[in-house]
Amino acid sequence: MKTIALLTDFGLNDHYAGTMKGVILSIQANVQVVDLCHHIKPQDIVHGALVLKSAYRFFPKKTIFVAVVDPGVGSARGKIILKTKDYVFVAPDNGILSLVAEIEKQTRFYEITNDRYFLKPASDTFHGRDIFAPVAAYLTKGLSPLTFGNKIQNIVRLKWPNPLIDRKHKRISGEVVHIDRFGNLVTNISEKDLKRFRGRFSIHIKNKSISQLSHSYAEAKKGQLLGIIGSMGFLEIAANGRSAGRRLKVLKGERVKINEA
Amino acid sequence: MKTIALLTDFGLNDHYAGTMKGVILSIQANVQVVDLCHHIKPQDIVHGALVLKSAYRFFPKKTIFVAVVDPGVGSARGKIILKTKDYVFVAPDNGILSLVAEIEKQTRFYEITNDRYFLKPASDTFHGRDIFAPVAAYLTKGLSPLTFGNKIQNIVRLKWPNPLIDRKHKRISGEVVHIDRFGNLVTNISEKDLKRFRGRFSIHIKNKSISQLSHSYAEAKKGQLLGIIGSMGFLEIAANGRSAGRRLKVLKGERVKINEA
Amino acid sequence: MKTIALLTDFGLNDHYAGTMKGVILSIQANVQVVDLCHHIKPQDIVHGALVLKSAYRFFPKKTIFVAVVDPGVGSARGKIILKTKDYVFVAPDNGILSLVAEIEKQTRFYEITNDRYFLKPASDTFHGRDIFAPVAAYLTKGLSPLTFGNKIQNIVRLKWPNPLIDRKHKRISGEVVHIDRFGNLVTNISEKDLKRFRGRFSIHIKNKSISQLSHSYAEAKKGQLLGIIGSMGFLEIAANGRSAGRRLKVLKGERVKINEA
Repeated sequence: MKTIALLTDFGLNDHYAGTMKGVILSIQANVQVVDLCHHIKPQDIVHGALVLKSAYRFFPKKTIFVAVVDPGVGSARGKIILKTKDYVFVAPDNGILSLVAEIEKQTRFYEITNDRYFLKPASDTFHGRDIFAPVAAYLTKGLSPLTFGNKIQNIVRLKWPNPLIDRKHKRISGEVVHIDRFGNLVTNISEKDLKRFRGRFSIHIKNKSISQLSHSYAEAKKGQLLGIIGSMGFLEIAANGRSAGRRLKVLKGERVKINEA
Repeated sequence: MKTIALLTDFGLNDHYAGTMKGVILSIQANVQVVDLCHHIKPQDIVHGALVLKSAYRFFPKKTIFVAVVDPGVGSARGKIILKTKDYVFVAPDNGILSLVAEIEKQTRFYEITNDRYFLKPASDTFHGRDIFAPVAAYLTKGLSPLTFGNKIQNIVRLKWPNPLIDRKHKRISGEVVHIDRFGNLVTNISEKDLKRFRGRFSIHIKNKSISQLSHSYAEAKKGQLLGIIGSMGFLEIAANGRSAGRRLKVLKGERVKINEA
Repeated sequence: MKTIALLTDFGLNDHYAGTMKGVILSIQANVQVVDLCHHIKPQDIVHGALVLKSAYRFFPKKTIFVAVVDPGVGSARGKIILKTKDYVFVAPDNGILSLVAEIEKQTRFYEITNDRYFLKPASDTFHGRDIFAPVAAYLTKGLSPLTFGNKIQNIVRLKWPNPLIDRKHKRISGEVVHIDRFGNLVTNISEKDLKRFRGRFSIHIKNKSISQLSHSYAEAKKGQLLGIIGSMGFLEIAANGRSAGRRLKVLKGERVKINEA
């Protein structure tokens, strides 16, 4: 049985996410519809791209992801299918697939223009229901992406907030891009970025310093700040058993600096 | 494989929703249990009826909906099955099915009285687990609704807050009945109600006016207020890329007026 | 088709819960993955144990539960499988399974040490994804628990806040251990604890008294406080149609006393 995984900013208080599941099952009864995440921050494409990037490679091969964070719904923004070696992604063309497209080596892009497979009448307010869900469901029936539109050369790329790397002075200036439920501060500084320091660096956020990376949250004393490579592949600043976000009173966008030690 | 869709006000912080899924799968392993929505506002039957009305017709034919918003659990309020041409609904008889019953042409109503199919002992605090979930699961096995109780003539109807329509002066006075995750203000004024103006009307909320309907959120300038027929079939007041609810500081119940232009 | 039920404190705003579902379906496509609850209060093992205890026996026999509330992830805390007559549980060895282990008569415990079935490289930050989800998925393939590690004599037991029972003066002093979405106050005083009073007792919380048990919320007048045995098997203090928590301004831990009448 194939899997369709849903990633949206629809939340769970309204009929939006549930209706998409209904549409998919109406077209293809023989599919596992999995809620990957419906709590992307409203219209926050960076957050959506980050969660999708962190999760997709753990899903079964041939999974179809429907990613709907879509502030431009009903505008001229495109609608796309991204096919990689193992997965298919259906989404508005607004950057939400760009972190996946960066990682994957074999990528093919298609526009979605053939309205034959849309719900009728297709609204201009809810393409998740009327376009993206049905396209994903028909894709599980073995239709080629070319059924829905032509191949295109590229897709919209996200303006991802890359950290500033000062090679001369061996410094990195990054930022907090996400704060998770536990108050862990996910930065945009990757494991690879830190490799250049060969383990000799200090992490600075607000007026606090952390002198080394931990391997687990529990390595630090209760409540103590620590740096760790988290499950998204980025440096995280955490506090063992507490919320680092609340302890440091930090919001998304807070600066994080790395200096050679 | 049949689908059972769950709509409740149980939220997801407790065992309630999960337990209902366990009960269903214990009786019928071969069913898709879909979370339609568990975040109906606690005991808000109008909200539940509205979400159900917006979503149900997008589900596969023969889907069984279990709708449990049930402030009268354990009291003398009835328990019912509603059968339409394509769907079956299982719920307390408190109005939660009345918007569906209004739309559907072929409706048959049954009371649920035969406790043979209830969990034993059936509590008076959690009929979702002990009565509605098992009845839905047994219905997927092909049992007739008559197995659970007699046909009844009618069900409890919701006091839906219809807008006041002043035909003489061509004015409508409605209200905000729901605010969604994006801060869109869903009113009780339907697309049909607006048709009488033949496109010539203005929308008034608080001290703001909107002079026409948009087709998509993105049609308006960033942050600008707009009126639109939303995916629930009602006039919505939105702000492109922002929360209209926060911008206007509006709560549920706020007056919305339509005047001929 | 087998069922795997997930109980975590991961919430639904991040990729954590969705990723676990992906891992399970990658290993075993032919399984129902059910979200039992992902909103256990962060790192609150007592809350997790309580929700698991309330729900598990309503699931199909042979269900495998993955319970990940894991403040000690990456530390020396153990990882365990608990097998009962009808169910299997996979979890960190931190007490989250201890209420189930207390109830069940036939229990066998196994440690999880064989990393052959872990994702590689297994992180020290996300054992839910790298260890517990794959172990549960492989268990559905018929592997014996012994495949994953040796039998062990016992597991970590939770420090459950038992009520103080004063047999001489016929008094019980308990506390609020959970407040649900409706504001119902779940206490640690069980139906059995109350039996000794043969129905003649009064309930005291803050400066309020309740003189008898109700059978349903609706038995009391609108807004009135009532005592009731709730669906978790414990005395709950509720207010018909209102939040008892907000009405009494009560938090978790508030004292609840029972006196003979």
